[in-house]
Amino acid sequence: MTTPSPASPTAAPDSVTIMGAGLVGSLLSLYLARRGHAVQVFERRPDPRRADVHEGRSINLALSDRGWKALGGVGVANDIRQVGIPMSGRVMHDVHGNLTRQPYGHEGQAIYSVNRGHLNRRLLDLAEGQTGVQVHFGQQCLGIDLKTKELRLRDTETRQEHTAPYQRLFGTDGAFSAVRAALQRTDRFDYSQDFLDYGYKELTIAAGPGGAWQFEKNALHIWPRGQYLMIALPNLDGSFNCTLFFPFEGPESFAALQTPADVTEFFTRVFPDATPLMPALTEEFFAHPTGSLVTVKCFPWKYDDDVLLLGDAAHAIVPFYGQGMNAGFEDCTVLNQLLDQHGDAAWADIFAEFQAQRKPNNDAMADLAIYNFVEMRDRVADPRFLLQKKIEAKISTQFPGRWVPLYSQVTFSDTPYAEAWAAGQRQDAIMARLMPHIQAEADYEQPAVQALVQQELAQQPAR
Amino acid sequence: MTTPSPASPTAAPDSVTIMGAGLVGSLLSLYLARRGHAVQVFERRPDPRRADVHEGRSINLALSDRGWKALGGVGVANDIRQVGIPMSGRVMHDVHGNLTRQPYGHEGQAIYSVNRGHLNRRLLDLAEGQTGVQVHFGQQCLGIDLKTKELRLRDTETRQEHTAPYQRLFGTDGAFSAVRAALQRTDRFDYSQDFLDYGYKELTIAAGPGGAWQFEKNALHIWPRGQYLMIALPNLDGSFNCTLFFPFEGPESFAALQTPADVTEFFTRVFPDATPLMPALTEEFFAHPTGSLVTVKCFPWKYDDDVLLLGDAAHAIVPFYGQGMNAGFEDCTVLNQLLDQHGDAAWADIFAEFQAQRKPNNDAMADLAIYNFVEMRDRVADPRFLLQKKIEAKISTQFPGRWVPLYSQVTFSDTPYAEAWAAGQRQDAIMARLMPHIQAEADYEQPAVQALVQQELAQQPAR
Repeated sequence: MTTPSPASPTAAPDSVTIMGAGLVGSLLSLYLARRGHAVQVFERRPDPRRADVHEGRSINLALSDRGWKALGGVGVANDIRQVGIPMSGRVMHDVHGNLTRQPYGHEGQAIYSVNRGHLNRRLLDLAEGQTGVQVHFGQQCLGIDLKTKELRLRDTETRQEHTAPYQRLFGTDGAFSAVRAALQRTDRFDYSQDFLDYGYKELTIAAGPGGAWQFEKNALHIWPRGQYLMIALPNLDGSFNCTLFFPFEGPESFAALQTPADVTEFFTRVFPDATPLMPALTEEFFAHPTGSLVTVKCFPWKYDDDVLLLGDAAHAIVPFYGQGMNAGFEDCTVLNQLLDQHGDAAWADIFAEFQAQRKPNNDAMADLAIYNFVEMRDRVADPRFLLQKKIEAKISTQFPGRWVPLYSQVTFSDTPYAEAWAAGQRQDAIMARLMPHIQAEADYEQPAVQALVQQELAQQPAR
Repeated sequence: MTTPSPASPTAAPDSVTIMGAGLVGSLLSLYLARRGHAVQVFERRPDPRRADVHEGRSINLALSDRGWKALGGVGVANDIRQVGIPMSGRVMHDVHGNLTRQPYGHEGQAIYSVNRGHLNRRLLDLAEGQTGVQVHFGQQCLGIDLKTKELRLRDTETRQEHTAPYQRLFGTDGAFSAVRAALQRTDRFDYSQDFLDYGYKELTIAAGPGGAWQFEKNALHIWPRGQYLMIALPNLDGSFNCTLFFPFEGPESFAALQTPADVTEFFTRVFPDATPLMPALTEEFFAHPTGSLVTVKCFPWKYDDDVLLLGDAAHAIVPFYGQGMNAGFEDCTVLNQLLDQHGDAAWADIFAEFQAQRKPNNDAMADLAIYNFVEMRDRVADPRFLLQKKIEAKISTQFPGRWVPLYSQVTFSDTPYAEAWAAGQRQDAIMARLMPHIQAEADYEQPAVQALVQQELAQQPAR
């Protein structure tokens, strides 16, 4: 293909344009280029592979089945798996440092801790190595003319403004999408952005001597504290990436921790086992920004057959189910399936079916992410809740295929999120009836309990 | 005060800036100027009083008690009342042209049909006649720099861009507010815009011979048809301003009416008494735009003590309770009360208290407006519903002050909207228990029913 300069790209008749070269945008560019489309990608930030570029976010992500499937679709799953650390369960840390382990699924099932920056750089390498893909960094989208089909861009180094025509535009520019902002001003565009009263702060648990992990390596660690929580995901170098999810205001909140002494006193008191392993705690606490947590919903996700939103631009969610990236990657899988079904020219049908299929599923995922916030910060510290999870695991083993725990459906399957959520709500109702009869794990074997379980499952809709 | 040119206004230390000179902006300018503030008003549209300016919207509005109170606060209520037409009740038209009348309140209570354009022009005359107010038309807000406190404006005639510094900025620029758009990009700003699947179309019932009204003058006319409705409000010249609220898509919808013959057939069939009085029907139907119906909610309404949103910019609602303008005017009343209480310098306290007080009330009003949509299009055609309303009127007469119908609390009082809505929900619950015992109006006098009413009212919270 020809190589237009970023200042005056001309759109070929069959070319597609992607705004945003984050995780979803760079993966999408691979899918579309491998189908033979010429792909122009514009990205606001500078190239993250340049030595002088500081990473904005060092957050770790949890890759699970939907993500792997999407990566597998362009043959890069094995490549990424090399740099992921499998986490086969949660380890809860109580205020005395006692640990409780809860497996995520069956033997051999795990989610993977992957560094966002690493994954993004790897996908960009693959995209730029792919015939037909051109990535232009430092291109801020100032606006879109939906009528003339032009992106208005500013080169962030030269400060020069220029326009780029598009035939087909994919908005993968994240939770604060400029592409979506243009759609928001069209008639009958439903939109909401809702912030939690919680913020987050990234901190570090240091590696031990010789790069050893100071807590169990193959687990996601949680310090549930009722109204707030801290989590930690393992890094390859032996350290853990911690995130504190904490109220903005109140007696225990970001607002209440004003000095290094405040921070040290608080952490020592509520996270006594982790704090001694966090030598940079107070420095990081005041140097790192306090992030906010937003849920974005909108509809439609398309404008005619010209523009389509995917990933966080269409459906940003809070991070508590570890599904934000996985949901965005699954968007790529589904779009690719629709291109297979309808052919690469039937964009109107494809865009319409894409949003009809993905909107209810990503709405359900948004609700699930809020639901899991309560579970992670509060319920996982409750012995009754942990007992219930053990009983659910027993039911699942006894009735294979007829009882798949909600977490497994979301994380270890590609069951549509809305179906998973509906099944999870039915299971919750059953467990609410069952648990009053169960005081200990062994009670599950009692004939009366077994009869109840049989009866409840008989009333379940066939899967 | 000095008179800066619109191209380079300089903000005096105690000056306030208002973006938007619609109904709420022009009324607010009067309130603030009469307190001694120097007021700069910028408005995107040209001066609506210029002979060559075509009115965008000819819609009639229903002024009720909250609106009158706000107009009274700057002494202009009597002036406006001269051009309003009192409507003391609803008149329902069925598909055979049969009429049913339902009074809005007690003898002497009415809402007023007022032309939006007339009201706006009158308020602008008053504002420009007020010492301290300067209105600049044709000034489109392109953006706001919240840090340097500058409005970025474009003169719509010269196309020149310029900036205007502000000390204190009030955003009264409507449902699609540019001021709010700037706040939307700040962290932790909750925002939603939700469109109904219904649009609206404005049409005209012509005046009769000699300027006579062809339906009852002092009423709001409704043609309820289950899934849609038409309403008509009287004009001073003998005509009525009609609005059809109608689905965008479906078997009976805007999408289904494609030709003049479609429109004539549909209107003749479903609005048989009105259609012969609408000589310009097909012409207007295709010439007038199809409007959309949006609910906007957001929070916070302020940015530090620099910027405050009021009216539709903070809380746009659907028009079915006739309270959009009244709610915006009440914002002015409340802001003025807070200035009285705190003094004209305590802006931080005033802004904080304003949004704390008004947010729950305007949220309740948004819900009420959707609630009344169902009532107007569907329930008012139901004889059981009309019987219930008669029974409620009897209870209200028998227990003065202890049972104020929801409609009266919203329309003929300044009870906070949230309190009115809560009381209305309690009343709905009582009527749901009472109505099974009542088949006709006279049943209300039966001892068993009277005993039930007494018992229900005894359980009501004291007002």
